[in-house]
Amino acid sequence: MSQVSERIIHEAGTVQGMRAGQSHPLDAIFSPRSVAVVGASPWQFGASGAGAAFIRALQELAFPLIYPVNPKHEEIEGLRCYPDLLSIDGPVDHVISAVPAKAVSSVLEQVIAKGSRTLHLFTAGFSETGEDGAEEIEKDVAAKAVQAGVRVLGPNCMGLYVPAARLSFTPGMPAEPGPVAMISQSGTNAGEMVRSSAPRGIRFSKVVSYGNGSDIAANELLEYLAQDPETEIITAYVEGIGDGRGLMCALGKAAAVKPMIILKGGRTLAGGRAAYSHTASLAGSTEVFEAACRQAGAIQVLSVDQMVDLAVAFRFIRGIRGPRLGVVGGGGGFSVFAADEIEAAGLDCPPLPEETQTELLRFIPLAGSSVRNPVDAFVSFDPTRLGKTLSTVGSAGNVDAVLFHIDFASPAAAYAPITSDPQSFIGLLVKEMDAAQAASGKPIIVAANQALDVKAVEYTLLFQEHCQRASIPVYPTIPRAAAAIAAYLRWIERRSVGEAEE
Amino acid sequence: MSQVSERIIHEAGTVQGMRAGQSHPLDAIFSPRSVAVVGASPWQFGASGAGAAFIRALQELAFPLIYPVNPKHEEIEGLRCYPDLLSIDGPVDHVISAVPAKAVSSVLEQVIAKGSRTLHLFTAGFSETGEDGAEEIEKDVAAKAVQAGVRVLGPNCMGLYVPAARLSFTPGMPAEPGPVAMISQSGTNAGEMVRSSAPRGIRFSKVVSYGNGSDIAANELLEYLAQDPETEIITAYVEGIGDGRGLMCALGKAAAVKPMIILKGGRTLAGGRAAYSHTASLAGSTEVFEAACRQAGAIQVLSVDQMVDLAVAFRFIRGIRGPRLGVVGGGGGFSVFAADEIEAAGLDCPPLPEETQTELLRFIPLAGSSVRNPVDAFVSFDPTRLGKTLSTVGSAGNVDAVLFHIDFASPAAAYAPITSDPQSFIGLLVKEMDAAQAASGKPIIVAANQALDVKAVEYTLLFQEHCQRASIPVYPTIPRAAAAIAAYLRWIERRSVGEAEE
Repeated sequence: MSQVSERIIHEAGTVQGMRAGQSHPLDAIFSPRSVAVVGASPWQFGASGAGAAFIRALQELAFPLIYPVNPKHEEIEGLRCYPDLLSIDGPVDHVISAVPAKAVSSVLEQVIAKGSRTLHLFTAGFSETGEDGAEEIEKDVAAKAVQAGVRVLGPNCMGLYVPAARLSFTPGMPAEPGPVAMISQSGTNAGEMVRSSAPRGIRFSKVVSYGNGSDIAANELLEYLAQDPETEIITAYVEGIGDGRGLMCALGKAAAVKPMIILKGGRTLAGGRAAYSHTASLAGSTEVFEAACRQAGAIQVLSVDQMVDLAVAFRFIRGIRGPRLGVVGGGGGFSVFAADEIEAAGLDCPPLPEETQTELLRFIPLAGSSVRNPVDAFVSFDPTRLGKTLSTVGSAGNVDAVLFHIDFASPAAAYAPITSDPQSFIGLLVKEMDAAQAASGKPIIVAANQALDVKAVEYTLLFQEHCQRASIPVYPTIPRAAAAIAAYLRWIERRSVGEAEE
Repeated sequence: MSQVSERIIHEAGTVQGMRAGQSHPLDAIFSPRSVAVVGASPWQFGASGAGAAFIRALQELAFPLIYPVNPKHEEIEGLRCYPDLLSIDGPVDHVISAVPAKAVSSVLEQVIAKGSRTLHLFTAGFSETGEDGAEEIEKDVAAKAVQAGVRVLGPNCMGLYVPAARLSFTPGMPAEPGPVAMISQSGTNAGEMVRSSAPRGIRFSKVVSYGNGSDIAANELLEYLAQDPETEIITAYVEGIGDGRGLMCALGKAAAVKPMIILKGGRTLAGGRAAYSHTASLAGSTEVFEAACRQAGAIQVLSVDQMVDLAVAFRFIRGIRGPRLGVVGGGGGFSVFAADEIEAAGLDCPPLPEETQTELLRFIPLAGSSVRNPVDAFVSFDPTRLGKTLSTVGSAGNVDAVLFHIDFASPAAAYAPITSDPQSFIGLLVKEMDAAQAASGKPIIVAANQALDVKAVEYTLLFQEHCQRASIPVYPTIPRAAAAIAAYLRWIERRSVGEAEE
């Protein structure tokens, strides 16, 4: 399997960005010097207060210049509130509109007069309502804005999360940037992608929630991300495929240079209806979309969870040469499932060579264990024996990677000496894992059960932090790990074939 | 849809039990007066100590008479330790063997001399090792025991968890009994079933981990549970289908009177190999097994998660008349997925009637929401509006049940007034849900996101506790809820047809 392919993933952004050499017209919208929130009102539970939420999100990431705008207030979230855009001194590059739909036209006039670069219409109530005339107003606003040199995000969207520029659309987002980008027609899905991937080490370059996409939409964003030097992995959630040919072309360009993972809402009739209610999107034919993804080389997923799993694979899996997994974990029933699930995912779980089994039996008792593969032995919470097991299994000639299962809610964990000093104990476990990886030259991939009780969740999060620092990929279950590894290998394989043909 | 079928689920145990009218030969093994743990040693991390774990588990459930047996110790876990079985005064009904395989024969002699009813061989290292002669020894022990009137559990298993009799095989199991039974060839899977279903309100009548099943095995256990008055729902994890015809017959008998949910390990070649290493089971043909399940009327699942989901459905879903779901939850992208996932599961997500939409728009703003179905409105953390939304959707003529989605890790939750008094706030939410159910006469089924951060996990667990008290079924995701509802409806449907034909 080609190492070139693997390198492509991690260098693509840089290479492409340098090749381009010049700034892209969209660059400016991702690095505003100042942000105004028009129609901001103080936070009040049960009332709107969305303006205040944007301000809190920006404050959390220490964005330097935030201007609340609302003639009814003097101060919002500790910041001076302005009666209108034009009374703000200095430039306002990015304007978030949280006013009702009927007031958007007058906001646009101010935005044009102020010379802002981008108008982000959080404001909803346009074409997605299906009301008479709503679609025309939406189109009209976008056309007027673009004509005046103002780009429009939305309407009906959450806008930008760009940690490197200290931009965020909702509180609780990580402040550190990373190499994954996302474009999304749903703010909820974008937020869920960021929040649920954070404990697994995924950080973002740019996240764009673009809603109805009246101006800036999927095609332009994908082409931008394809050449963005800060982006190595592209993810997308789309509902409508509007200009189908254009989308496929953009997907193809992105997928040619970076892993391109796409999630489509509205696969069914009911989902299509919901997509129309949500962003006025026409869902189109699922079959056509699937065929187009295949042709473009984009990886289609069916949930945010799968999208996170693939992002983790492209971000953290390194040096895997094939589909043969050695499995380490405790519990006979678990081992049987693991073998079933790995084979069902299209990977292999081969019997370990005689000499590897003999080696393992030196420190694993025969009774109540199995050393054939999966290796069913209660070593997960015994750092020294864990390290020996992982390096022995990894060193087997017929193993391409080691899949290690751990469950901090299991009885074995309850007996391990974790409680007195979790930080050190868990640090030691991951150190042994890392050393085993180095010793065997085969990557370790982890399945860490998502725990249900508070203590086990704490330990699991701590364990994931350590894994993250060691760049070890973590999945919540064996089937999810196996599916992601299989998709990753298919991508690498496809690339190798492509390179060979070039 | 027949109400008789639904009643069957909840009365089957009682009816059958009464009909039998007499005690079953296996009854005695589930209610020992005393338990001895032979080969017990004090707990020590990294060493065996399994005997101590059994003792701790029994102590946790306040089992009255526990006798550690080991000539090398005077006291274990605060209990007097006996040199051998025969030096214990009074009867010893149940004996757990934690000695090495080679010492089992002498333990059996003592068990017979002592007149015990059951020998539970936690001891592993028999046929599953594949070592020469191991299978013969296993068979020999079982034959000798049975001849002397002693029943054998195992070898290579965790034994009994029977909360009503204060029996448990691992610490951390709930003390309250309930109407779900499980038989399992894997102790890990049995433990995981109990632990992972506990927060969702599932409690057990009898859980039997029977390992290699040299004497007591699936067929006899299933026939027992079919007539057990304390069991309403039967679940099973099997690896081997040994006496295939016998298993199918037992499954059929169980499924005729109670919901019978079965999980099979060893679906693939690799899984079959692992099953043999685990319990010396011959996995058999997957196709034959699947066909047999269908014919027997047993519901086949592919993971412990699915098994929990089905148990929750049979335990808590009430009064659902058809597949049409009204969905309530926040987030446009979420709504699109929900509609897709419901339809993909074979259920319906129909547009709500005009008058229901009008009613909802009285308290839900048009902009940024949808009231068509799914109802995408941020009402999840606003008790009054939540109650009104759920009862309005439930009252729609084309809705059979309401699927309510809530995520305690969402930004909406972060702004809700939960933190000051979580108990009251969450109690109020569930009270409103319960009232809405009563008002509309349609059941509410919940999808509560499994949270990743500690605070959200605490809230989710608290919410689940309240739901449990109100007998409201909870699932972690929409697809898992939809799959369980669909399987439940198919079962009810099949029953109705069966009744009509009788």
